[in-house]
Amino acid sequence: MANPTDLDLPGNWGRWGSDDELGTLNLITDDVRANAAAEVRTGRWASLAQPITPNPMISSPFAPTTVDVSPVQQMMSHTGIGVAADLMLLTNRHAKSTHIDALAHWSTGDEVYPGRPRNQVVTAEGVTFASTTAFAAGIVTRGVLLDLAIEEPLPSGHAVTARDLEDAEQRQGVEVRPGDALAVRFGWPADPLLPGKPTPGISLDAVRWMHRRGVALYTGDRGDAYPPLDPGGPSPLHGVALGRMAMPLIDGSQLDDLAALCAELERYSFLLTVAPPRVHGLTGIAVNPIAVF
Amino acid sequence: MANPTDLDLPGNWGRWGSDDELGTLNLITDDVRANAAAEVRTGRWASLAQPITPNPMISSPFAPTTVDVSPVQQMMSHTGIGVAADLMLLTNRHAKSTHIDALAHWSTGDEVYPGRPRNQVVTAEGVTFASTTAFAAGIVTRGVLLDLAIEEPLPSGHAVTARDLEDAEQRQGVEVRPGDALAVRFGWPADPLLPGKPTPGISLDAVRWMHRRGVALYTGDRGDAYPPLDPGGPSPLHGVALGRMAMPLIDGSQLDDLAALCAELERYSFLLTVAPPRVHGLTGIAVNPIAVF
Amino acid sequence: MANPTDLDLPGNWGRWGSDDELGTLNLITDDVRANAAAEVRTGRWASLAQPITPNPMISSPFAPTTVDVSPVQQMMSHTGIGVAADLMLLTNRHAKSTHIDALAHWSTGDEVYPGRPRNQVVTAEGVTFASTTAFAAGIVTRGVLLDLAIEEPLPSGHAVTARDLEDAEQRQGVEVRPGDALAVRFGWPADPLLPGKPTPGISLDAVRWMHRRGVALYTGDRGDAYPPLDPGGPSPLHGVALGRMAMPLIDGSQLDDLAALCAELERYSFLLTVAPPRVHGLTGIAVNPIAVF
Amino acid sequence: MANPTDLDLPGNWGRWGSDDELGTLNLITDDVRANAAAEVRTGRWASLAQPITPNPMISSPFAPTTVDVSPVQQMMSHTGIGVAADLMLLTNRHAKSTHIDALAHWSTGDEVYPGRPRNQVVTAEGVTFASTTAFAAGIVTRGVLLDLAIEEPLPSGHAVTARDLEDAEQRQGVEVRPGDALAVRFGWPADPLLPGKPTPGISLDAVRWMHRRGVALYTGDRGDAYPPLDPGGPSPLHGVALGRMAMPLIDGSQLDDLAALCAELERYSFLLTVAPPRVHGLTGIAVNPIAVF
Repeated sequence: MANPTDLDLPGNWGRWGSDDELGTLNLITDDVRANAAAEVRTGRWASLAQPITPNPMISSPFAPTTVDVSPVQQMMSHTGIGVAADLMLLTNRHAKSTHIDALAHWSTGDEVYPGRPRNQVVTAEGVTFASTTAFAAGIVTRGVLLDLAIEEPLPSGHAVTARDLEDAEQRQGVEVRPGDALAVRFGWPADPLLPGKPTPGISLDAVRWMHRRGVALYTGDRGDAYPPLDPGGPSPLHGVALGRMAMPLIDGSQLDDLAALCAELERYSFLLTVAPPRVHGLTGIAVNPIAVF
Repeated sequence: MANPTDLDLPGNWGRWGSDDELGTLNLITDDVRANAAAEVRTGRWASLAQPITPNPMISSPFAPTTVDVSPVQQMMSHTGIGVAADLMLLTNRHAKSTHIDALAHWSTGDEVYPGRPRNQVVTAEGVTFASTTAFAAGIVTRGVLLDLAIEEPLPSGHAVTARDLEDAEQRQGVEVRPGDALAVRFGWPADPLLPGKPTPGISLDAVRWMHRRGVALYTGDRGDAYPPLDPGGPSPLHGVALGRMAMPLIDGSQLDDLAALCAELERYSFLLTVAPPRVHGLTGIAVNPIAVF
Repeated sequence: MANPTDLDLPGNWGRWGSDDELGTLNLITDDVRANAAAEVRTGRWASLAQPITPNPMISSPFAPTTVDVSPVQQMMSHTGIGVAADLMLLTNRHAKSTHIDALAHWSTGDEVYPGRPRNQVVTAEGVTFASTTAFAAGIVTRGVLLDLAIEEPLPSGHAVTARDLEDAEQRQGVEVRPGDALAVRFGWPADPLLPGKPTPGISLDAVRWMHRRGVALYTGDRGDAYPPLDPGGPSPLHGVALGRMAMPLIDGSQLDDLAALCAELERYSFLLTVAPPRVHGLTGIAVNPIAVF
Repeated sequence: MANPTDLDLPGNWGRWGSDDELGTLNLITDDVRANAAAEVRTGRWASLAQPITPNPMISSPFAPTTVDVSPVQQMMSHTGIGVAADLMLLTNRHAKSTHIDALAHWSTGDEVYPGRPRNQVVTAEGVTFASTTAFAAGIVTRGVLLDLAIEEPLPSGHAVTARDLEDAEQRQGVEVRPGDALAVRFGWPADPLLPGKPTPGISLDAVRWMHRRGVALYTGDRGDAYPPLDPGGPSPLHGVALGRMAMPLIDGSQLDDLAALCAELERYSFLLTVAPPRVHGLTGIAVNPIAVF
């Protein structure tokens, strides 16, 4: 299958060949990384991840009957030797878990970027192509925060446009360049979606802008709007950016700490390391992105 | 309990107060981080983690009857909507998983640093003190690799001493300073321990040296020797460095990529980010440390 | 250790030797089973288990933020071949799961029946003695229901005594005999325990009566009272019957269906099969006991 | 969709209406159960389940690097109060686990018995129709063992025919009647399937015979042959009996104990209780069927 072009949507299928598993991470060149390195001057840093408090897997007769759903469940081990150990069960794909989506998470039709049949890619034994394996050694690039909520959270239902992003560039004195990771702050918590509570979200117009600018990676405290901005079309971030442009997404970022540090330092660009546990063959995985200034 | 001093061992119990959960991470000052930042010039980087290929949790009638044990098991979700998802079950504390030990992982007597009863700290609901919560926002510091295996792996059973470490400093033209993360390369794989196959390991002499130097964090492709160098005493890294000096350990690092990059760049110091998934209340967690040059 | 006799409590440690793993199941002789067989005449039957609706292990962006805790979590597998499969994570020891307690579930001091050190019996690799292995091939015996809630549930905080049980025998025209499984119906749901909501429970007096009668197995919709009837002593069912008398307990039975069938048939004795999945080495396991008339 | 008849295969789609979830369990009438009850005279019994030794979920630095795959993994809980607890992760659908297949396990085309779209029946939240819910209160019926391996195991690759089954009836002096559970013993272990090691299996001819006889439930130490007897058609037991006739299957039974007891008692019919944990909404579940004589 060629680049899906039914809706004249931006896309990168074929741009880096038929065996590519990196997508827009290809835009992170040595020059981009050298620019990223040049951002590091103080050693100040911020985490872009939400904190997670696990639920215990086992319960007592006195345990509560309802629990807040956590992306992580832990189980403490019985050991007789004074060493404490545990394991965790992790639902990566959870609104309360900051996680990175692999390209194979999304299908366009029955195909996964850059045109492989999904049923050959996603198998019970693991994802065979364009999985978290692509992130296994970590991603290092320049990051830019565009803070759309400096004064107050974006209003319910707001569609973030290219204009919003360019206004933020102007206001902050920063420019998004090819290969950058783009962090967009809505000022909203990364809560699960609720009927009757519309969220703001990224518009297709903003995604086209990311395509033109050569953004390599998106990380935001919100992503696609709910309910959908265009119920008839693909979702801008998942359906177009991830699925067609092959741009990995970090869902459910927590950007308050980063925004506070940027404001303090009066700088909105930084070195970003994205290094989830080095696990192969998944559709996504929890991550704790680190911005260093 | 006061600092355990029964064996005249180095220790830090009480040094940062009775409510401290950071241990030697307190040594990472703003100055240390500024020095770390100064290491970043090119944007070249390496991961210090072993790759992990998960086992599937579910099996078919045709599945093999034995498997190589993996620290991770994955389960692909059934979805009817073209989106692939999965979860993972992670045994953090596994030789084939690069993981960071929280201070509460280790007890000295029945107490956990800096002197709390283990049975109040380690509970079925989670670890209440000195857990992975201390690492939740990530660790950023200067890292130094001392490569003891430039020519060949350390011999079986070798005890790494302060002299070995200082020789490496000399050879490499680098100096371990207070607040640094110390990476020691043995040139050995992070395999499970096997009776009859003695490994090299860190001696108590080397741990005393780390204490004098003010090392904040240890990361090595091997750690404590097996069988123990001193069967009658505490293990140098886990019993003394982690348990008494309150120095977090990254077990099971993979340092081949880092060593190759250091050799190419002819530099053995770098910015190190250690950012496991931001999960609270565990005894340890898988991590993908990233060195940036 | 000899039979724990500090409180003049009934006990069976040593009664069947130092290698016994069956406890009061030894009382189920061939004669008992022949009598059980004689109860089967119609093929009518009832389940004594609570129904369990699993929670899914994985969640969507639209999933609820709180869930009722379920003893079971399921995960549907991705399969590409038209066959649906799944796995389940089972917390056996949950108020909403009808489960059978193995003898090793309970310690008296630091010992497990009939006097083995707990730390040798309960290990991270599994329970090595008096575990669910003892139930692996199933238990078949005569069962008797004593329904204490024919008209209404027992009152909050009621302590069930020997007299209550004997009154029920009289009223129902049935007799509890050596080797029988005793089902006691309180008319209460098997809910988790809540502060401020006292439950009825079995008294020590009733447990002494079970000891005299030679009950082999207890199954009730409630068990030990909450708060404890005697806060200073061991709990009657878990501390004395399970721990000292070595009588397995089925916690959290659902007896409404059984009571209705007994009332319809005007018979309170039956053949009982107790056959959990044949899994070795656990402290307890979910079970679906079946009464056949 | 009407009863799938493309291959003139036996089928029951529509026989019990469009809302039926029981399939051939409808054949277990009160008369059948009364006959089953009449089989119970001695209280002797046998389990039809394989024993399962769990693997521990957590490992130590000294754990082996490969394990025999077990359908169950257990994790012992850390508790500070002398009570041992654990949880288990159960892959029901495993050759080494005796388990019962729900009707929704199998699809014919894209439909599940009796004609519902699979993607509406099998969902991430659980199976909404014809799941294990149908078995939740247990199955009680008459069972018959046809032992085809009294002298030696069936030969590799043997196709069991109606003639084989009728010969066994003659030899054993027993008759399979409507509503019976049929246990067929091949004398083979319930091992995973291996290329190059052909197993014996049930032929379509034998399944047609089961249909004529009105068998309600199949339980065997082997089931469908591997490699398939007819590679071009549906598998006799899963594709035809389960998928089209809506006959639940118990896979991976262990019939050696039952066969020994039948031989001793010189009786091949019995009361069978099939009572898995009462968990709703799964595609199958581990079970420990019990035969009582």
